[in-house]
Formats: sequence, C-alpha cells, structure tokens
Amino acid sequence: MLDFDYSISTEVYFGTNKIGRIAKEIKKYGNRILFVYGQGSINKIGLYDEIVKILNDNGIIYEELSGVKPNPRIDSVRKGIEICKQNNLEFILAVGGGSVIDCAKAISAGFYYKGDPWDIFLRKAHVLESLPLGSVLTLAATGSEMNGNSVVSNTDTKQKLVISSDLLRPKFSVLDPNYTLSVPNNQTAAGVVDIFSHIIEQYFSPVKEAFLQDRMAEGILKTCIKYGPIALKEPENYEARANLLWAGSLALNGLLSYGKIGDWATHYIEHEVSAIYDVTHGVGLAILTPHWMEYVLNDSTAYKFKEYSRNVWGVEVSNPIMVSKEGINKTKEFFNSLGMPSTLQEIGVEEGSLKEMAKKAATFGELGSFQKLNKDDILSILKNAF
Amino acid sequence: MLDFDYSISTEVYFGTNKIGRIAKEIKKYGNRILFVYGQGSINKIGLYDEIVKILNDNGIIYEELSGVKPNPRIDSVRKGIEICKQNNLEFILAVGGGSVIDCAKAISAGFYYKGDPWDIFLRKAHVLESLPLGSVLTLAATGSEMNGNSVVSNTDTKQKLVISSDLLRPKFSVLDPNYTLSVPNNQTAAGVVDIFSHIIEQYFSPVKEAFLQDRMAEGILKTCIKYGPIALKEPENYEARANLLWAGSLALNGLLSYGKIGDWATHYIEHEVSAIYDVTHGVGLAILTPHWMEYVLNDSTAYKFKEYSRNVWGVEVSNPIMVSKEGINKTKEFFNSLGMPSTLQEIGVEEGSLKEMAKKAATFGELGSFQKLNKDDILSILKNAF
Repeated sequence: MLDFDYSISTEVYFGTNKIGRIAKEIKKYGNRILFVYGQGSINKIGLYDEIVKILNDNGIIYEELSGVKPNPRIDSVRKGIEICKQNNLEFILAVGGGSVIDCAKAISAGFYYKGDPWDIFLRKAHVLESLPLGSVLTLAATGSEMNGNSVVSNTDTKQKLVISSDLLRPKFSVLDPNYTLSVPNNQTAAGVVDIFSHIIEQYFSPVKEAFLQDRMAEGILKTCIKYGPIALKEPENYEARANLLWAGSLALNGLLSYGKIGDWATHYIEHEVSAIYDVTHGVGLAILTPHWMEYVLNDSTAYKFKEYSRNVWGVEVSNPIMVSKEGINKTKEFFNSLGMPSTLQEIGVEEGSLKEMAKKAATFGELGSFQKLNKDDILSILKNAF
Repeated sequence: MLDFDYSISTEVYFGTNKIGRIAKEIKKYGNRILFVYGQGSINKIGLYDEIVKILNDNGIIYEELSGVKPNPRIDSVRKGIEICKQNNLEFILAVGGGSVIDCAKAISAGFYYKGDPWDIFLRKAHVLESLPLGSVLTLAATGSEMNGNSVVSNTDTKQKLVISSDLLRPKFSVLDPNYTLSVPNNQTAAGVVDIFSHIIEQYFSPVKEAFLQDRMAEGILKTCIKYGPIALKEPENYEARANLLWAGSLALNGLLSYGKIGDWATHYIEHEVSAIYDVTHGVGLAILTPHWMEYVLNDSTAYKFKEYSRNVWGVEVSNPIMVSKEGINKTKEFFNSLGMPSTLQEIGVEEGSLKEMAKKAATFGELGSFQKLNKDDILSILKNAF
C-alpha cells in the first residue's frame, strides 16, 4: 500500500427531506451566493422552487447562473466568475448533476485567479484559494459531490480537461435519492456506467498490495451490477436509487484510490471523443472500457483480470486468459443490458477523427499506469471500438 | 437504506515517516499540549524520543500523562483533566493504541464540564464542547483514531461505559504501519478480532437494504481473514500491517454504519466481562461472538448468516441453516487459528459472576437490534460461552 494523506472533508446529508439543512450550512460562509443549475430538470421536480423558498426564508441573497450544459463549458465558468465578482458573492450552491457541480468548482477555482480560468486547466496556474461551495445532487454518476475534481470543456479549442484540488471539495452535499427517481433511463444508465468506470480506473493499478481498497471496490461494483438494472426497470425504487447515489459518491471520493495509483487511460481517451462530439461521458466510457480491457490483457496483466472476473462476476474457469476474457464479456453484456451502444460509429463518431483524438490524448505523454499506452496504442483502442 | 449525516472529519497521515506532520497540525490549535501515552511500548520503538524531539524543535510546550492502561480508567481521565486545567493546555496528543486515544477523548469531553467526567458516561451530562485532540496510532484494533467513541472503565463501580460524539473525533491521526511491526502476537491477534467484531456488529442489522455498506463490510472482513494470519507469522510484513491498520480505521469510522443500525449486543456483553475481570477486549469478543451468532441464528435470521457464510467464507451449501452454521464454525476456527481462547473459563471468569454480568448488561433495557436480547438471553449466551 502506498503512503497517503486522507482528507474527505465534505459533509453529506443523505436521505429524504435533507434539503432544509442548506440554509444553516450556507450561512457558515456568508449570505450572498451564486445559485448554479442546469437546463431545467430541477424545475420539473419542484426543486428550484423549494430552494428559492429556503433561500428567501433565510435572508440569503442569490444570483443565478442557469443553463449549465452536460460537458460544462468554460464560457459558463467565465460568466459565473464575473457574476460572483460583480456582486461580491461569498458562496456557490450547485444544484444538479456532476456537470453543474464541476462548473461551480471551476468558478470556485477561478474566482481568486486574476487571469482567464482556462489557464488553470492548461496547468499555467494552480488553485491556491477557492470560493467555498456546496451541492444538491440530482444524478448518481460523477462523484463530483464529494471530491475536488472538475472537468470542463472548451468548444473553441475542442479540449476537455480536468483539474483536481482538495480546495474544491464541496463543504456539504445534499443527497436525497427522491430527486433521482425521475431521472430518465438513458441518463440513469450512463450514470451507472460512469460509476462503474471510476471504480475500474482505480481497481486496475500497478500497486498490487492494496487488498483492502480492491475488496471495497468490488463491493461497489457489485452494487452497480445489482441496482443498475433495477433502477431501469423500476425508476421509482428508492433502495436502488439510494444505493446507486451513495455508490457514486464513494466510488470517487478518495476511498478507493488512497494507497494506490489509478489508471485513468480510458477516461482520458473518452474525454477526447466527447471534446469533439459532445457525447454523454458514460456512453463513451461504456464503449471504450471493454476495448481498453481487451487491449491491455496479456500474460502479465491477466492476474488482475482473473481477480476481477472471479470476485466481481463469479466466473470460475481455471485458465487465466480464459477467465479474464469471460470477465470482459460480462462487462460488455452488462453495459449492453443497460442499453448502451457498443461502437463509436453508432454515436456518430467519424473514422477520420480517430487519429486526431489519439494524438490529443497523448499530448502530455503516455496514458495509464496499469499498462502504459502511447499514441499508437490509443489509436488501436479507438479503432477497435469504432 | 436509512437517512444519515456523514461527517468523517479526521485527517489521516498514512505511511512511513508521517510523524513529522504533527507539529504543523498541532499548531493549528495551540502550542501547549497534553501528551498522553501508555505503559512504555512507545519508548521501546523510539517513538517517545521522536515525538519529544519534534515538540521541542517546534516550540510546543507539553505536559505528560503516562501509564494509561488497557481498559483505560476514569482515574487517568480525571488526572488528565486536572493537568490540562492547571496548565491552560490547548490540545491533547494521544500516542498509543485505542485505550490511550479513548482516555484522551474522555479528557477532551470532560475538560469543559464542571462536574465529574464519569457523569458523562452515566448520561447525566452531554458533550457540548471539547478540547481538540490528535493521535499517533501504534496498534490496529479499536478504530478510535477516526471516530468519536470513547470507552472508559470505573474500577470502583466495576463499570465499563461508552460515550460517542462527533466532537471527539481526532482532528488528525498519524497511521504509520512501521510502528505496529513489533506488536506482540497476542495483541496483534486481539486487535484483528476487535476489528472483525466491529464489522460484524454493523453487518448484522435489522436494516436489510444497505447492500452497498454490507459489500464493503465483507471486503474489510476478508482483509482481516487474509492478513491476520500473515501478521502473526511474519510480524514485520509491512503490507499485512498496513492493510490491517487501515482496516481498523475504516471498520469503525462510520463508513459501514451510515444508513444502518448496528447490533452491538456482543460488545455490551463483553464490556461487562472486562469490567469485572479486566480481560483484553478482543479476547472477550473472540469468545463471545460465535456464541452470540449461534444464539440468534433461527429461521428468520438465517438469511443474513447465509449471506455472511457465502460472501465472506465462500461456503456453498443449499440449506440455509446448514450454511449458516458452517459460517459460524469458520468464524470460530479463524479466531482459534489466531490463538484465541474459546471459553470464558479459560480466561479466569467464574461461573458465579455470569448472573451479575447479565443483569448489568441489561441495565438500560434489552440489548441488540438484529435480535433483541433480554437478561435471560444474555445469561444463556454467557453460560454457553463459559
């Protein structure tokens, strides 16, 4: 196990009617806030009205930044920072899924920086200070509600980049499974794949002795496998929604990565796909993950696939390559059973753009740690997935 | 899954040479501290000298409270509070195992209370304010390093009672597995049983739908089963020590209990045994846990034992009672393989005292939640374990 510093500071209010807590929590930091949300789903479930009432009843002054899109844009971030500065705002409340929270974090990161916030994503500047933020989550997927990561897209440069800092962890997050009961099936499914993929990225690691972390990872993978299909068949099944919601947070709050090194190659490759084609992150991951698995499976990596196949899927075959392949097939079947497409072609990707994606993915050097991938490896995976 | 408020605020510095971090962390709260430790094991491993040097080099003034015993006494707590008050101390640094940390927490809880600190354990007073504390852990066992629990004994009244408050969570804990390499086998084994038992107490619950928590619990149980025997055979095996150390913290920091109700009957019964006989907590648990299991196993509880037997021990038998019994046997064998005794008699308990223990255990009413136990049930378990 590698050394690590553990700090998961986000307080989580989980369950029915926890929303009332936000006023008290916000007031620890101020009473002038930026209220960030997406494209209207919070109106449909009555959450917008509920929050506005709480803010008004508690004398919290708010400015709104609405219309944040999936794959949130740096333009929204710039706009948010401007509103915060002009109105001397003291806190950001993000209400929505991971994209809304990621946008809020980028505003938080950029607020004290004098230059353009995109500089931080380009590693030209670092997060040294941040505006505090909190979240109310409406989708089980990214884990953004409990971590310090933010992924933002730049449509001008066709880049989708990530920043990460403990300073960007939400101070609190409200996780009420009831808000997720009306999430449409395609988004539920993409969310489950996203959670599953986050775990896989940390599970396949060059660190072999993080036994504890890997057993917990398997537990969260099994939760996705059990409750993903139930949430699709019975969208209003509270237990399925609750287990998935909490699984999403624990999958990427540090619990599975402390003491290990993650791989993350598949995520970086997917970011290049969705930077150009604006596809749903989870959909891209569902297509790419099994192909990454097939590509990196060899005699020296089979030990880990064997562990995965046996402990997660219960596959019992003695040959290590055979058992590994069976686990990969189970993964594919699972994603397909959730209604995910199997090829990049199906989601509108053009073959001619694969080379550019591979090149961009390798901008900062090789990808991955479980198995290092150069530009040619990445192109092969993209071609196999096409 | 039940509603919950998640707040695990302790920062953990895990790994080799993390001790240097304490000066910076302590200074967030002051520079006059109480340095609490036990009966000399920190001298043997050179940790005492190392800490004194760090404190001196950083201008941190300290008073010492030494000689804290396993099953820490309220007398030590009273003494610690007095030293803190007389010297205007601002922070408590606990260096040792769970008993030392529990003692420090009780001092922390009692510091701002005007009456006798035992009142808090008797529920005559509540923890409303606390002196901040941090810990340096030297034994994988109680999980005290990341939670808000404190168990203290009163030799005058022969009581061993627990208090719990988020205000008592350590601000930071240093977990360096190297400090645990020289722990003698009997303590290592008792620590593993303690961790195992904490998980069991949360796993067996009337809440059936905390699937995610239970799969993670199984992961930590498997970690005990794998690394317990390795740590006994190869005490200096870093990976075994690291996995057990982290397992101990995660087993009782809230991760497995948020969203559930714990049982804890076995712990309360064991407290009555060690209140009179001052036995090692883990040893008492090793004897009592399988008997608790056997006693509460019936047609309506077998579903959970079946889950336990299959998922933790890999038992494959179709009859639910048979598979359950097999899991209980595996548990017994595991504890025996760690060198644990099987009966209360072996550790010097007298048959005549069982009635008193049962009566005291039921002072506040029935015990347990997975299965409610009255005084007679408790006596039966104690007799079976005798």
